[in-house]
Amino acid sequence: MNKVKTEYVTFKQDFRLESGRVLSPITVAYQRYGKINSDKSNVILLCHALTGSAHAAFQLDNDDNKKVVGWWDSMVGSQKAFDTDKYHIICPNILGSCYGTTGPASIDPSKQSPYGLDFPVVTIKDMIKLQKILLDHLKIDKLYAVAGGSLGGMQVLEWGVNFPDIAEKLIVISATSKITPMAIAFNTVAREAIRSDRNFNDGNYYGKEYPKDGLAVARMAGHITYLSDTAFHNKFGRRLSGQDSIYDFYSRYEVENYLVYNGHKFTERFDANSYLYLLKAMDIFDLSYNFESLDEAVESIKAKVLLIDFTSDFLFPLYQGDELNDVMISKGVDVVRETIDAHYGHDSFLIEVDEQSKIIINFLNK
Amino acid sequence: MNKVKTEYVTFKQDFRLESGRVLSPITVAYQRYGKINSDKSNVILLCHALTGSAHAAFQLDNDDNKKVVGWWDSMVGSQKAFDTDKYHIICPNILGSCYGTTGPASIDPSKQSPYGLDFPVVTIKDMIKLQKILLDHLKIDKLYAVAGGSLGGMQVLEWGVNFPDIAEKLIVISATSKITPMAIAFNTVAREAIRSDRNFNDGNYYGKEYPKDGLAVARMAGHITYLSDTAFHNKFGRRLSGQDSIYDFYSRYEVENYLVYNGHKFTERFDANSYLYLLKAMDIFDLSYNFESLDEAVESIKAKVLLIDFTSDFLFPLYQGDELNDVMISKGVDVVRETIDAHYGHDSFLIEVDEQSKIIINFLNK
Repeated sequence: MNKVKTEYVTFKQDFRLESGRVLSPITVAYQRYGKINSDKSNVILLCHALTGSAHAAFQLDNDDNKKVVGWWDSMVGSQKAFDTDKYHIICPNILGSCYGTTGPASIDPSKQSPYGLDFPVVTIKDMIKLQKILLDHLKIDKLYAVAGGSLGGMQVLEWGVNFPDIAEKLIVISATSKITPMAIAFNTVAREAIRSDRNFNDGNYYGKEYPKDGLAVARMAGHITYLSDTAFHNKFGRRLSGQDSIYDFYSRYEVENYLVYNGHKFTERFDANSYLYLLKAMDIFDLSYNFESLDEAVESIKAKVLLIDFTSDFLFPLYQGDELNDVMISKGVDVVRETIDAHYGHDSFLIEVDEQSKIIINFLNK
Repeated sequence: MNKVKTEYVTFKQDFRLESGRVLSPITVAYQRYGKINSDKSNVILLCHALTGSAHAAFQLDNDDNKKVVGWWDSMVGSQKAFDTDKYHIICPNILGSCYGTTGPASIDPSKQSPYGLDFPVVTIKDMIKLQKILLDHLKIDKLYAVAGGSLGGMQVLEWGVNFPDIAEKLIVISATSKITPMAIAFNTVAREAIRSDRNFNDGNYYGKEYPKDGLAVARMAGHITYLSDTAFHNKFGRRLSGQDSIYDFYSRYEVENYLVYNGHKFTERFDANSYLYLLKAMDIFDLSYNFESLDEAVESIKAKVLLIDFTSDFLFPLYQGDELNDVMISKGVDVVRETIDAHYGHDSFLIEVDEQSKIIINFLNK
């Protein structure tokens, strides 16, 4: 299996955020897969989702037991959708995350301790502007494509609007130009669960007990939105766990075990403050922000666009894809929309490999 | 305005639960509206939902400021859907609740302190069996109708199956014969939020700080399921609260304020342990339990049945109403199904008064 290592670069210059606040220094963690060609015309930038990392594929250099599988390993590699025999793929960890790129757990130089809630609110536009600085550093000024799902898809949209001359193709999967109030409601439950944890301490928990239970509950609420009613039926039904009795107060359904297990497992790999900042970035994301309308924002896009969504996604419902597609068509964007019939809900972009791959390969080859 | 007081009766005999465990003594709180006629043929039993109480309508005797409105005040009263000029209506608080009927906050006679988690798991069948004991005490052996929404509708179904000769008509609103795994998932988030609260202390929090924050988060998760995507759009949109800036970490959307406000407000009126026990009762409810199939369970029903559901209910989706209706038809039950086009989601039965009233009045008059 191909190996990959996470690379890091630290930028010392001031990075001015959309909010007006300044971060400095900023580190970006990123991974690269496949060879870049001589004219640098085969570069694809991958944008990860809420809790992803730079590790999209391949085997980590120091991971001899192959424990950590990349978040899109099924899609990135030799002869896969993002074919590393043909393309040079770069995947940076996003601003505000906790996998190497600067975020609330990073050291605030003004106090020599982690930022915590002194970290500024960051936006998806801030994330892609930092990715642009990374590309400049790597001396890459053209992208063959930018691709990503969910929060990653939102980054792709911002790429198209803010840097219309850089990417030839945009692959926007399971995304939206702004999330629904119901999605904000789910994020609210997550936020309140974390903030009310006994160990949250206004975000100052580094080096102490951390808000594990609150983060676990937050993630459980998230897991509901990543699946769908049908996925819940297919995956768990109403099966009780093992030999549990319905009359036992502590008995659990399998769906319950799944949520509790995955909720708590998540806390081993993610920082609660990062989760809060990234939920915030998702909530406040609005592609039309600072434009008169979504039409005007979309008008800037020059790249060919592929929109992929999935029938069972109730977090970012299909009518949002319809709207985005319609606006793009009306503004003359060269857009293809593919709606895949899938039961996995919002998470389908991580699971429905076959049909998604065909569509992406076809779009990249055109 | 008509006045009503909550009445209480305590039964000293052993009450054997479905689980085999025994509760004694048991108190039931209930309210009565409208006059009973001489042959006692005009009695309607109302079954309340998850966090309801015996106070369905009228003005509480000691509530001079009219602060506490009954949960179905729009539907119960003179010339309303449940017309108190014609019917004698009884609404008991359910077993396991915290509004007067015995629940986990009640005194456990074996230890002279609140049951807490020593309270037995109770089922919806247990609830209606206790209601039957109340009716026996009131010397009522026939019911003109039993009616209720959500968890109340589940009680109505159990009435029809377990006491087929007592009620002439059943009005089952926004209910299901068993909840979906996704609904269990929402209840899991609520449960875990309560249990991980710093003050939960395995349910032994009476007289001390109570698990306010966890219960608030639990209720926020519930509120998502009571509404619908459309209701969230119509009610809140993506409006920010007041003068908040999107770049302020603590800024809130209106939907967020709504959830946080209502989540915390709920904790002033409800006991966290009761919430856990009632969620459990909802999770384990399965009308076909102890029968070979749902068909066999439904076959027992002799009453005329009115099923009402609402198009936007995603907690108890319409396909569940379809299934229940189909089974009833196939088993020769005299059933009418009415699906009301409404945007309010699961909570529509508390809100969509006009159309619901017409349908109910028509059904009761037939």
